[in-house]
Amino acid sequence: MSTKIALLNIGTELLRGRTINTNAATVGQMLLSAGYVLETTLVIHDEGPVIRAALEQLLATHDAILVTGGLGPTKDDITKKVLLEMFGGEMVSHAPTLQRIEGFLKRLDRPLTDLNRMQADVPSSCTVMENEMGTAPGMAFLRDGKTLISMPGVPYEMKFLMMAHVIDLLQAHYPVAHQHARVVRTFGIPESRIAEKMEAIEADLDPRIAIAYLPSFDGTKIELKLPGRPEEAAAMQAILADAQQKVVALLADYVYATVDKSPDQLLAEWLLTQQKTFGTAESCTGGEISAKLVKHSGISAVHKGGVVAYMAETKVNVLGVNAETISEKGIVSEEVAREMAEGARRVLNCDYAVSITGIAESAVDAPASEQPQAWIALAGPAGTVALHTRLLRDRKVNIEFAAYAAIIFALRTVGATH
Amino acid sequence: MSTKIALLNIGTELLRGRTINTNAATVGQMLLSAGYVLETTLVIHDEGPVIRAALEQLLATHDAILVTGGLGPTKDDITKKVLLEMFGGEMVSHAPTLQRIEGFLKRLDRPLTDLNRMQADVPSSCTVMENEMGTAPGMAFLRDGKTLISMPGVPYEMKFLMMAHVIDLLQAHYPVAHQHARVVRTFGIPESRIAEKMEAIEADLDPRIAIAYLPSFDGTKIELKLPGRPEEAAAMQAILADAQQKVVALLADYVYATVDKSPDQLLAEWLLTQQKTFGTAESCTGGEISAKLVKHSGISAVHKGGVVAYMAETKVNVLGVNAETISEKGIVSEEVAREMAEGARRVLNCDYAVSITGIAESAVDAPASEQPQAWIALAGPAGTVALHTRLLRDRKVNIEFAAYAAIIFALRTVGATH
Repeated sequence: MSTKIALLNIGTELLRGRTINTNAATVGQMLLSAGYVLETTLVIHDEGPVIRAALEQLLATHDAILVTGGLGPTKDDITKKVLLEMFGGEMVSHAPTLQRIEGFLKRLDRPLTDLNRMQADVPSSCTVMENEMGTAPGMAFLRDGKTLISMPGVPYEMKFLMMAHVIDLLQAHYPVAHQHARVVRTFGIPESRIAEKMEAIEADLDPRIAIAYLPSFDGTKIELKLPGRPEEAAAMQAILADAQQKVVALLADYVYATVDKSPDQLLAEWLLTQQKTFGTAESCTGGEISAKLVKHSGISAVHKGGVVAYMAETKVNVLGVNAETISEKGIVSEEVAREMAEGARRVLNCDYAVSITGIAESAVDAPASEQPQAWIALAGPAGTVALHTRLLRDRKVNIEFAAYAAIIFALRTVGATH
Repeated sequence: MSTKIALLNIGTELLRGRTINTNAATVGQMLLSAGYVLETTLVIHDEGPVIRAALEQLLATHDAILVTGGLGPTKDDITKKVLLEMFGGEMVSHAPTLQRIEGFLKRLDRPLTDLNRMQADVPSSCTVMENEMGTAPGMAFLRDGKTLISMPGVPYEMKFLMMAHVIDLLQAHYPVAHQHARVVRTFGIPESRIAEKMEAIEADLDPRIAIAYLPSFDGTKIELKLPGRPEEAAAMQAILADAQQKVVALLADYVYATVDKSPDQLLAEWLLTQQKTFGTAESCTGGEISAKLVKHSGISAVHKGGVVAYMAETKVNVLGVNAETISEKGIVSEEVAREMAEGARRVLNCDYAVSITGIAESAVDAPASEQPQAWIALAGPAGTVALHTRLLRDRKVNIEFAAYAAIIFALRTVGATH
């Protein structure tokens, strides 16, 4: 029997849509890497009776409950009181946490108030998990072989507690059933097309392999999974490697990675490994390509920067695009994309520069030439290449898609696909 | 009794953390604007028995269930079969949907396959809600005064169905209890500090007002709410306006808006209304400030673009920052921020340019001068002003925070706060 783990996110702000629940994705990913699959996520309001009912229900049906939220300093936070009622004991001040809060406030030149002091209070029935990233501690409760873990809702604090304490605690109590897995990452082909094409090879794949299609802005990831004991790893990996190879051969034109890394991470790693400098010239994506790259630590060694040439005048004045090219070929044209990339390579003095010029949004009844689309170019030591892509969705999605299209085009052109 | 609405998100990719559940936030916001408060969100795997159990449980305890996901073209989608079992009838092809799928594929030069054809199949027991944004239709089922609505999981398709059909359907079946609300948006003050300060005025506020603190990357939003019938609107709004004014007076240094709009939306609207052109010079944020701005339709009329001057050499070569300023004052200094903003204003030929130079990440034991921090400057017709800010979190959060800090600094400096 696999371990049944539930996530309970407490927070009216999540149900009102003010905050996007990134914690649920973080917890799901971290559990997965540790060999667990999250069974369910439940989101509820910050109200005592609602919290208590949800906790009792989840405890009855799961082995472990991870709780986030309901621990902040403002008065509408009441989770700690519910946990005290459920697990007994009395509220006590946790000295190391109180010390951390005092130190944190000192750095901000702020006094210690009663509200801050209360954040160090915990039920005596819990084991405290120290939160080095913030003021609210994590708490672990055990009852009848079940585990309840409470964490603050602040994303980086929760992530710290998961890494530093929670995964270890789960692994100590619930040994992991092993799963072997491989991935194939594709871009530029819809999920339905992949599924149709896969029919041609499904009979050739080991029937024990479970195949999942996971679409996102950076394409559709195909996941191949096989259960097996740790000592069977070599045999299972051989079966998966064979299946992975067949999928890659089938979808060759669309595959950009057989490792589970995002396009921007792959590009960042390639640039750093090869010690090649990089720059961007963005129009319709407005800086999104560069912003994705700078999320990666260490990138400042190779990323020179970029030019967001949102208006035609900026393309001409900063990137040196010919005004005639714009008037003759149009602002969204292969020629302008090429001149932008070459201009960025010159102005930024980098080995490679990627450019994009496109239309992120247009009226539904606009003629084909004005429908959302983009031209992408990559200029490098061996010359400049360009690609046209249609954008089929709404403004925000088109911008995300176009940014990934440019990054993946760069990956493919320099041979950095995996 | 208020209407009890639950959201059920079906998708293994959500529980595995591959996809962030933005749909939950979208649904929460849209329900809120229509006068409903989402009571709970439940996320489950794409498995028939799991889906059926969750639907039956939610139908027993709620008035309306909104379901997303489980409708895609690949074989692991099984929601439609569960709905057929639960609500009866037979599977029939929906002609207008089939036509839309044919048209969509024709635009992509793709043939109609059996998988595509099956997407037009629906249980005869449902009312079809046409999905103009994609291939999978929405379906509404009614039973014993309860409503179950199934939508695809693709975010813009779901959003379209909510806007075009679902809200109307809910309002027809469940009349709305009116709530009056006002907001105060703050930046640069922690939630705990706000709560402490609020104690000073709480006795002066009408006790029927519910106060919520909603923290996010763009600051903490304070929400003031008061229930009341529509015909009491004037009186309720007067009470809320008085409370809002008191909160604004209390937190004046931190308030940037008394309307519920994001900082980037406020800046985009101000630039468009005033017909002022804008540009950016970004270092540590890597393009994020500009990327936030271009999410807004129409911004191409005023946003000239920007320079991502990630390396020192780009600051000098593209923005014209003095190499001596960098060597004498340091790359993260007020002087460099000022020269970057002034350089961007000159190079991009815009009315206002915002700049940022900072450190997004450093070793925990780095000296204070190398701890995460940023200098921000705004250059405009009246001169240049600058601001220093500390960055207290991890790399990604610091980038987000710094981008908002720069946008809000621009808002305040030009007098575009609301």
